[in-house]
Amino acid sequence: MVFIATSLDGYIADKEGGLEWLFSIPNPQQIDMGYNAFINQIDAIVMGRKTFETVCGFECPWPYTKPVFVLSKSIKSVADTYADKVELVSGNLNEVVKSLHQKGHQRLYVDGGSTIQSFLQEDLIDDLILTTIPVLLGGGSPLFGDLAKPIDFEFVSSKVYLDKVPQVHYKRKRV
Amino acid sequence: MVFIATSLDGYIADKEGGLEWLFSIPNPQQIDMGYNAFINQIDAIVMGRKTFETVCGFECPWPYTKPVFVLSKSIKSVADTYADKVELVSGNLNEVVKSLHQKGHQRLYVDGGSTIQSFLQEDLIDDLILTTIPVLLGGGSPLFGDLAKPIDFEFVSSKVYLDKVPQVHYKRKRV
Repeated sequence: MVFIATSLDGYIADKEGGLEWLFSIPNPQQIDMGYNAFINQIDAIVMGRKTFETVCGFECPWPYTKPVFVLSKSIKSVADTYADKVELVSGNLNEVVKSLHQKGHQRLYVDGGSTIQSFLQEDLIDDLILTTIPVLLGGGSPLFGDLAKPIDFEFVSSKVYLDKVPQVHYKRKRV
Repeated sequence: MVFIATSLDGYIADKEGGLEWLFSIPNPQQIDMGYNAFINQIDAIVMGRKTFETVCGFECPWPYTKPVFVLSKSIKSVADTYADKVELVSGNLNEVVKSLHQKGHQRLYVDGGSTIQSFLQEDLIDDLILTTIPVLLGGGSPLFGDLAKPIDFEFVSSKVYLDKVPQVHYKRKRV
């Protein structure tokens, strides 16, 4: 499952890698736009190394309440601070997913641009929940990448948060 | 104004330039997903040469009921069949728009990927009405392109057609 916000033109970070635009919509009550409800229904989080390092850089307590698996070919261990928080995984993505399923982690929250693209290339994503921030960034890190062939999804539902931010849930259409 | 359908990953044509995926959603009543209501509120259509040539290739009667202006640097005249249907325009986009406004064409329907991108680069688009077909094409002709700086829009409204196709109207946010 993917739960992510993009710009109108499909970027998840701006040209400088910045995320400030994500917070450009006034949100005085700090509503979570469905994030906690989403997190409550997943079993574990799978993210790439870059997303992990971004999260490590946030000046806040560890934000996850579910097991976190970090996909990485390059790093072999994590700093002690994170040793009890994340587990490193690597190798063939289909096998990584199978192994997580066998450990009881059925519903995986897949996060980070490269990781989401890799999962989509293997057709391993069943739910896409996309929140659109109404700005054209005109460049940056795109959410979606190249695919060998098209992948059909189906519309499930849509909401509008704060009267300003549409969110649409799509599900993989399998025949 | 822009009224266009894209794939989930923001393409307006697939890798082979094909548009078949646009018609992948069963639409037995042939509903127009807001197209006629949109057309009724515009004064004229501005499209690029490529879109014009695509429309010329359709095996159907001329589909437009409003004046059509074709932007082109390269072509100097159109085939006789189209002489009473379209007018060629060229030059600086801001001046083209000013001149169309002076002729009474206030609300312009801007169509075609390159043309839309050029208008956005000049910040000449006030309304974006985007219909999303729930398929990841994984490549093709993107709707949006590079911009010198971000452009803020605002959510106006959203609809879902056929219980399957979300459409969102965004308006340029000018301060």
